[in-house]
Amino acid sequence: MSNPGHSPRIDCLQYANWSEKIFRQMRSGNVDAVHVTIAYHENFRETVHNIERWNRWFEQLPELIFQGRTAEDVQLARETGRTAIFFGFQNPSPMEDDIGLVEVLHTLGARFMQLSYNNQSLLATGCYEADDSGITRMGRQVIREMNRVGMVIDMSHSAERSTLEAIEISERPIAITHANPAFWHPALRNKSDDVLRALGQSGGMLGFSVYPHHLKGSSDCSLQSFCDMIARTADLMGPDRIGIGTDLCQDQPDTVVEWMRVGRWTKEIDYGEGSRENAGFPEMPSWFGDNTDFANIETGLRAAGFDAEGVAAVMGNNWLRFYGQSFGTHTSSVTDGRVQAAQ
Amino acid sequence: MSNPGHSPRIDCLQYANWSEKIFRQMRSGNVDAVHVTIAYHENFRETVHNIERWNRWFEQLPELIFQGRTAEDVQLARETGRTAIFFGFQNPSPMEDDIGLVEVLHTLGARFMQLSYNNQSLLATGCYEADDSGITRMGRQVIREMNRVGMVIDMSHSAERSTLEAIEISERPIAITHANPAFWHPALRNKSDDVLRALGQSGGMLGFSVYPHHLKGSSDCSLQSFCDMIARTADLMGPDRIGIGTDLCQDQPDTVVEWMRVGRWTKEIDYGEGSRENAGFPEMPSWFGDNTDFANIETGLRAAGFDAEGVAAVMGNNWLRFYGQSFGTHTSSVTDGRVQAAQ
Repeated sequence: MSNPGHSPRIDCLQYANWSEKIFRQMRSGNVDAVHVTIAYHENFRETVHNIERWNRWFEQLPELIFQGRTAEDVQLARETGRTAIFFGFQNPSPMEDDIGLVEVLHTLGARFMQLSYNNQSLLATGCYEADDSGITRMGRQVIREMNRVGMVIDMSHSAERSTLEAIEISERPIAITHANPAFWHPALRNKSDDVLRALGQSGGMLGFSVYPHHLKGSSDCSLQSFCDMIARTADLMGPDRIGIGTDLCQDQPDTVVEWMRVGRWTKEIDYGEGSRENAGFPEMPSWFGDNTDFANIETGLRAAGFDAEGVAAVMGNNWLRFYGQSFGTHTSSVTDGRVQAAQ
Repeated sequence: MSNPGHSPRIDCLQYANWSEKIFRQMRSGNVDAVHVTIAYHENFRETVHNIERWNRWFEQLPELIFQGRTAEDVQLARETGRTAIFFGFQNPSPMEDDIGLVEVLHTLGARFMQLSYNNQSLLATGCYEADDSGITRMGRQVIREMNRVGMVIDMSHSAERSTLEAIEISERPIAITHANPAFWHPALRNKSDDVLRALGQSGGMLGFSVYPHHLKGSSDCSLQSFCDMIARTADLMGPDRIGIGTDLCQDQPDTVVEWMRVGRWTKEIDYGEGSRENAGFPEMPSWFGDNTDFANIETGLRAAGFDAEGVAAVMGNNWLRFYGQSFGTHTSSVTDGRVQAAQ
C-alpha cells in the first residue's frame, strides 16, 4: 500500500478534530505528511497532555499514521503507505517564559512554532494588535535557539513588522504555513507583497490556506480564483517558495474557534476573523472539504498553467525540501525528492 | 508595644532575603507596613510556593509580622506593634496567560502587580525594549480586571508609552512603587516629567527608591541630594502623590540579581542596570542600609524643608490613603490617618 504513483503531497497546517475517520481520509487522499497544530494557548504541561493523546493514536493506528520528525519520515510514509504527522504550535505558549523549553519541545517532536498568535506574545506582535513593536528582546534569543535546534519559525498570525524582522533576524529560512496574499484578498491575516517578497528571497515558504476567511469570496471562492492566485504568487515569490497549508479545521465544534480566539486572555468574546453574526467556523469551499480533496487543487493548478513539475512542487516537493533543510541541527538538502543529510 | 509615637511609616517596595533578623529590624525601625515582592518571573504555581513560605513566617513570627490585605491592617499593625506585609509582583508572570488568575491572586493577597518587568510582557512593554507599543489587547482587559478586584497597577519597570497609557486606561489611580525622577538621575528606570505629572494628576503615587542604580551618584549619593530631589518632585507631582519604595534587597546573594534580570528568557547573561564589571548588587548608600534607617530619611526631609505634616505624608500617610482607596472592590478613603470604608 505504498504511494508510488504520485509525487509528495504535504499539508503544512491542519487543526482538525482528529479521528480515525480523518486519518483514513488522509490515506484516501494520498497525503504523505501533515503539520498538525497541537497547541493554541496551551502551556507546557497542557501541550504534553496533547502529545500524550497523539501518542495513543500512533499506538492505536500505526497502519495509518506515525510521528514525523525528519524529512526522511515523509519518504518513509510514502514507502509504507502512511501519513507522517509533524507537531507545531500556533503560539509560543507551550514554551511559557522558558527558553530552555525550546529544545525540550523539539525533542518531543515540535517542528513549527508561531512567535505569536493574534495578540502580543513575549516574542513578537500578533496581527490583531494596534501597534507592532517587532521582535522583542526575548524573541531574538528564542529565534536563535529555534535556529539551533531546528524548529521552524512560523509567522502566519504575526503582524507585519514582526514578520519582516523575524525573516531578517533568523539565520535559517522561516515559514508562513497558512495564509494567502493580501493582493488577492486583503484580510488582516493575509500577507503584503513586501512580506511575501522578503520571505521568498530568504528561502522561506508560504503555505496557501483554504480557510474561508482567507479566501477571496470566502466560502464561495472558486477553485480557479484560488489557483490563479497561486500562479501570481509563484511569480512574486518564486515557484520553489510555495506550498499548501490548508488550515483545515474539520469536524471542530464552534467552542474550539472560541478557544482559539479567546484563550484565557479576556473575559469578553473576541470574534477574530469572524463577527458576532458569523462567529463559528465558516463553511469550507465546495472543492475542498477534507483530506480526500487535494486532487481538486492539483487539477486547478494544471488549469492555471502549472506543468506537472510545478504542480508537484506546490503540492509537496517544496515543503519536502524545506523540511529537509529545517528540522535538524545541521543543514540538510533534498535532491529530486530524495532527502540527503548534508555535511 | 504599640507605635503611638510616630506617624505611619510604609515602605512600598522591598525584596530582601527575608529572615527573622530583617523582621526584627522592621520592628526596630517602626515600619508599619511593607509591600514585599514575592515574584519576579515565577509562574502561578511557583508564586503559590512563595506564598506558602510567607505563610510559615506568619505562623512562626506572629508577634513581628502578619499578612496585610487592607489599609485597616496598617492601623492594626500600629495598634499591635507589628509590621503588615502586603504581597506584590514585579512581572505579570504569576497570572501567566490567564485573566481569571487576577482575582485568584488577589484573594491570595496580591495587592500590586507590575504590567511588565524589563522586557515585553503579554500586557505592556518593559523599559529595556527598543520599542514600546503600549498596552496590549490583553493588557487592556487585565487593567479592567485589576481595577475591579482592587489590585494596584504598578509601572515601575515599564516603558514610557506603556506607562502613560496605563495611567490613562486605568479607572483607578496607579502606582510607580520604586523609581526616581529622570530629571535628577537619568537612568533608564527613572521616570520622565511627563510620566510623573500624569501620575500625580491622576491621583497615582510614586515611591522613591534607594537602590543605588536609581540614585544620582549611585552608592555615594548624599542624603541631602536624595531629599532635595523629593522636595522638587513634590513640587512637580503634588505633596500627596509621593512616598517611599526603597527597593531594599538586603542580604541577597548575587545569584538573585541574576534571576531578576535573566529569569528564563535568555541563555546569555543580561546585566540590566549593572554591567559586566559591576554585575552584582551595588552597595547601599551610607544613610540607608536596612529597615532601621528610615529615621535618617525623616531627618533629611526636615532639612530639605518639609514640615512635620509633609514628612509624615512622604513617610507613610500618602501610601496609607492610597492603600485605602486601592485594595477593595469599593472605594475607600482615609481621613486623618483613620481608614473608613466608603459607601
